[in-house]
Amino acid sequence: MAKPEIHTMEELSAAIGVSRPTLSRYFQDPSKVSKSSVERIRRGLEQVEYIPNFFATRMNRKKTGMIGVIIPYLNDLFFTRLLESIERAAMRAGYTVITQCSHSDPEIEARAAETFLSMNVDGAVVAPLGNRSDLKVYERLNARLPFVLMDSRPARLSGVDFVGTDHVQSTGLITEYLSRVGAPPVFLAMPRVNFNALEREMAYISKMEELGFEPTIIGIESLNGEGYFEAHGLAVLDDHFSKGNFIDASILCANDRVAIGALRAAARHRLEPGALHRGGLRIAGHDDYPLSEFMIPTLTTVAQNVQAIGQAAVDRLIEKLRVEKPHDNQAVQLMDGVLKVRDSA
Amino acid sequence: MAKPEIHTMEELSAAIGVSRPTLSRYFQDPSKVSKSSVERIRRGLEQVEYIPNFFATRMNRKKTGMIGVIIPYLNDLFFTRLLESIERAAMRAGYTVITQCSHSDPEIEARAAETFLSMNVDGAVVAPLGNRSDLKVYERLNARLPFVLMDSRPARLSGVDFVGTDHVQSTGLITEYLSRVGAPPVFLAMPRVNFNALEREMAYISKMEELGFEPTIIGIESLNGEGYFEAHGLAVLDDHFSKGNFIDASILCANDRVAIGALRAAARHRLEPGALHRGGLRIAGHDDYPLSEFMIPTLTTVAQNVQAIGQAAVDRLIEKLRVEKPHDNQAVQLMDGVLKVRDSA
Repeated sequence: MAKPEIHTMEELSAAIGVSRPTLSRYFQDPSKVSKSSVERIRRGLEQVEYIPNFFATRMNRKKTGMIGVIIPYLNDLFFTRLLESIERAAMRAGYTVITQCSHSDPEIEARAAETFLSMNVDGAVVAPLGNRSDLKVYERLNARLPFVLMDSRPARLSGVDFVGTDHVQSTGLITEYLSRVGAPPVFLAMPRVNFNALEREMAYISKMEELGFEPTIIGIESLNGEGYFEAHGLAVLDDHFSKGNFIDASILCANDRVAIGALRAAARHRLEPGALHRGGLRIAGHDDYPLSEFMIPTLTTVAQNVQAIGQAAVDRLIEKLRVEKPHDNQAVQLMDGVLKVRDSA
Repeated sequence: MAKPEIHTMEELSAAIGVSRPTLSRYFQDPSKVSKSSVERIRRGLEQVEYIPNFFATRMNRKKTGMIGVIIPYLNDLFFTRLLESIERAAMRAGYTVITQCSHSDPEIEARAAETFLSMNVDGAVVAPLGNRSDLKVYERLNARLPFVLMDSRPARLSGVDFVGTDHVQSTGLITEYLSRVGAPPVFLAMPRVNFNALEREMAYISKMEELGFEPTIIGIESLNGEGYFEAHGLAVLDDHFSKGNFIDASILCANDRVAIGALRAAARHRLEPGALHRGGLRIAGHDDYPLSEFMIPTLTTVAQNVQAIGQAAVDRLIEKLRVEKPHDNQAVQLMDGVLKVRDSA
C-alpha cells in the first residue's frame, strides 16, 4: 500500500503529532530538538511520504541555495564543458544550479535574467551571448545580485567580475609557436559574434607586429549565420583553396570549430595539413575542443583551462555571497592557455 | 534615479493605490477590471520596478507552468540538440523549462527527479542515464506527474510513454544499404551504457540474419569508461588494425561518436575508408552527429530525427497535462531514421 503523501509542514505536524516549531527546528538542526522528539519524528517520517515544497521552503529564506547560470548556445561542447564544470563546483558547495540557455537570442537572454531575479537566486554566472546582447541585462544583474561574467566580456562594461582566458597570452603563444617552427601564420577569423572573436584577432595582430611580421586576417564576413563555426571555416577556405590562395600557408583559426571546417576544406582539395613533405600547409586552432584530438590530422591548438574557469567563477560568486563587500571591488581572473602540439601544425 | 523596487502584491497594492484583489484580477485577465483601474494600474507600474516573486506566484497555483527535463550527459551534441528542440517546443507552448543533467551519475539523476517533484513542475521529460539508472525513479515520476521518457527505454519498464527512434528500422536501413553496395558489415558496438546500445546490436543481428549473412560484433568491452565513445572506437579499431583485422571490412559503428574514433584509427593506420580503389574498408555510423559531415572522409550515417523527437515528447506531455486521462493509456512513438550517404561508406 502506498504511504500517504504529505506536502506541507502543517500536514506533517498533524500526521506525526509533533508541533510545527519543533519540526522546523528538527529540519534546520536535529541537535536542537530533544532526543525523544527526534525519535518520534524519524518514526513518523517512515510512515508517510513527505515531499517538501521547494517554493514554500525557499520563499521566505534569505538565501535560496540556488545559483543561476546562463550559457549562449547548447550546440557547442566548449560551453557544455564549461557548464559541467560550474555545475560540479556548485554541487560540491551545496548549491542547486538553475541553467538557462540564450539560444543565440538576446531576448531569451534578457528573459532568463528576469527569471533568475524573480526566483531570487543567490547569485548568477553568465557566459554572454555576445555583440547582440543588451549590456543593461548584465548591469541589472550586477546591481541586484552577486554576479560573475565568464568566457567573454564586453569592452564597454565596467565594474563587473570576470573569469576567462587571457587571450593575449593564449593567442600570442600559438602565434609565436607557429612562427618559430614554420611560416608566420595568417589568421582565419570567426564571425565577430562575441567579444572573444575580436580579442583574439587583436592579440594575433599585436604578437605578429612584436615578431616583425605582417598580420593577415581572412574570413571576418559571416558566410553562414552565427554559431555554425565549422561551416564558416569550410566555406571560407574552400573558396580560397579553389583560387590557389593559402594552400601552403600556416593558418591559425580563431577557434577549433573553425579549424575543423578548415581541415575539411583541406581534405576536399587533397591538401595534407602538417605533412611537411607535401608542402607547407599547416592548420591550428584555439580552445582544445573535445574532438580536436580525434581529427584527421589531429589538431594543434591552445587549450583553454575550462575546469579552472568554471571553478574560479563559482569560487568568486560564493565569496561575494559570503561577504557583504568583497575586499577587491572588482576581480578579473585570466587563465593561461596551454599549447597542444599535434599533427596538423 | 532608480525606481523603487517592489516584490510583493501587497507592496504593489499600497504603492499604486489599487486593492489587492483588483490587482490579482488585472494580472490574470485585464478585461475583468474596470477601465479606470486598468489605467491607474498601468500608470502605477511605470513608476515602480515590480519583480514578481517566482515562488509566491507559483506556490498556490495548480499549474506552475514549468516542465522539468533531465538529460544524461552534457558533453554530447546529440543530447544538447535534443534538449534544444525540447526547450524551443516548450517555450513556444508558454512553459519554462528547468533542466537538470545526470552527469553520468544515477544518484544525481534520482536527486533531479526529487527536485522536480518538490518544485511541483507540471510534467517531466527524461532521457534516461541508462543501465545504471534506478528504474524506481521513472516509476515514481510516472505515478506522480505527466511523464514522458525519450531516447532510450528500459526493457523492464512498462506503462510509460516513450518517444524515440525506431532502431529496428534505422539500424536495419543502414545494415541493408552497406550489404547492398559492398561487403556485409561487422558491427562495432558501443559500451552498453544505455538501452539503445543493445537495441541497435539486436537490430543489426536480426537484419543480418534476414539477409542471410553471419553477424559479427566487436568492441562490446568498455575500454575507456563510459561516455567517451570516440576514445572507445579509436582504441578498439587501433588494436584490431594493428593485428591486420578488419582492414578491408565494412564497419557499422553503434553511433557516430564511435565512428569518429574509428575514422581516427583508420587514419593512424593510413587506411582510407570509402576510397574503393584503396581496398574495401568502409566506416558508417548512427545518429548524424552534428560534426559527421565535417569528418575526413565525411561520415555515412543514419540520422535520428531529433527535432521531431523533442517536439513529440513536448506535445505528448502537454496532451497529458490537458486531459486527466489521455485516450490511449500508453503512447509509444518511434521515428524513422534517414540514410545519409556520404564518403566514408
